[in-house]
Amino acid sequence: MAGKLYMIPTNIAECPADSSLALETQRVATGLKHFVVENIRTARRFLKSVSRDVDIDSLSFTELNEHTPEMSIASMLDVVEGGEDLGMMSEAGCPGVADPGALLAAEAHRRGIQVVPLVGPSSILMSLMASGLNGQNFTFRGYLPVGGELNKALRQMEERSQKEQQTQIFIEAPYRNNKMLETLVEVLKPTTRLTVARDVMGPEEMIVTHTVAEWRRKTKPDLHKRPTVFLFLA
Amino acid sequence: MAGKLYMIPTNIAECPADSSLALETQRVATGLKHFVVENIRTARRFLKSVSRDVDIDSLSFTELNEHTPEMSIASMLDVVEGGEDLGMMSEAGCPGVADPGALLAAEAHRRGIQVVPLVGPSSILMSLMASGLNGQNFTFRGYLPVGGELNKALRQMEERSQKEQQTQIFIEAPYRNNKMLETLVEVLKPTTRLTVARDVMGPEEMIVTHTVAEWRRKTKPDLHKRPTVFLFLA
Repeated sequence: MAGKLYMIPTNIAECPADSSLALETQRVATGLKHFVVENIRTARRFLKSVSRDVDIDSLSFTELNEHTPEMSIASMLDVVEGGEDLGMMSEAGCPGVADPGALLAAEAHRRGIQVVPLVGPSSILMSLMASGLNGQNFTFRGYLPVGGELNKALRQMEERSQKEQQTQIFIEAPYRNNKMLETLVEVLKPTTRLTVARDVMGPEEMIVTHTVAEWRRKTKPDLHKRPTVFLFLA
Repeated sequence: MAGKLYMIPTNIAECPADSSLALETQRVATGLKHFVVENIRTARRFLKSVSRDVDIDSLSFTELNEHTPEMSIASMLDVVEGGEDLGMMSEAGCPGVADPGALLAAEAHRRGIQVVPLVGPSSILMSLMASGLNGQNFTFRGYLPVGGELNKALRQMEERSQKEQQTQIFIEAPYRNNKMLETLVEVLKPTTRLTVARDVMGPEEMIVTHTVAEWRRKTKPDLHKRPTVFLFLA
């Protein structure tokens, strides 16, 4: 009988596992022998933080990230067809969302392997929960285009947001976060509500929603190189 | 000093709290005295399931759901300005997502009250994690239009999905789930990948992705009156 592919969320900030992971997630994560992970070093450190009793050296890790050739993904599931369970973990948060883990889940479905999602933190979803913006219609777009294309993209998103009452969610390369906030406050309409969610689940978590007109009057928070999710609703 | 508004996820299936909630979420939920909830009976039952020691009769509950007049929402936060913490819980899953809880969070931001999201299950996000569809660009649209408008809406969504490589996520009134699956298999293109996620976290959890061409050949799962999330990527 084939094993299962478990999609295992990991911490999104330097906080104890009990804050961010259901016990069942911790139990499954520390009971598996085989992993496909976005980054091996992070994955080992994560498993050690969940349980000191884990014998890391007895576990097998294979990396799947943006450098992985797509043709090498299929063989990662051989162990599952051999009857063993496999855990997928991304660098932080929920695998399969905003990372290449979806490619492994897609291949599992093609082979009829059961894929089981577990409960853990997602900075995207938690930002939305706390934003007060529309949670009945929302879109996550990953990274937006850079340079001259950014303003155009933002205006198109704002138009769609207004027309469909759809919350727009996105992220930026962390070293450009402050610049992104400046651009948003400059480009978006004064009445658009803009949420900045910084360090979700971290010690300096800050999730704040203001209209763009209000943001223009305020001292901006420092987002430089800190994990931040941006959301707006026109 | 003002209190905080905690956005508290609840179970999405009849499973033990440890499967679906971080310990920290359970700790906060059972430590609060004041709640705004989508349904009082469900909220009481949920708190009892997390801890038998909770003295339910000492807690205050106010309902916020689709029947609540918007003008009555503001006063729900008076207790927070008085210095006490408040917990928001929806009927199931994450408050502020696919429920009216966002209105309370929005009002909190207007008053400068801190909103804190906690970790728990979201059938939308967990379906996406396990689907193998694109998690770097996705949209949740809540309920789609019914009747003659549905086919048109699906074709527009499929077009956008293809153009933007955007996963489309939505739900249906549970008694129309089987009909929705029939319609999807009929209307969407054969190459579009369609995920059906039924009873996420429940004992009969089934998350399956096939192309529409494959779905046409298969015996359809029974989704009647069972919580189901639909996802597709063209």
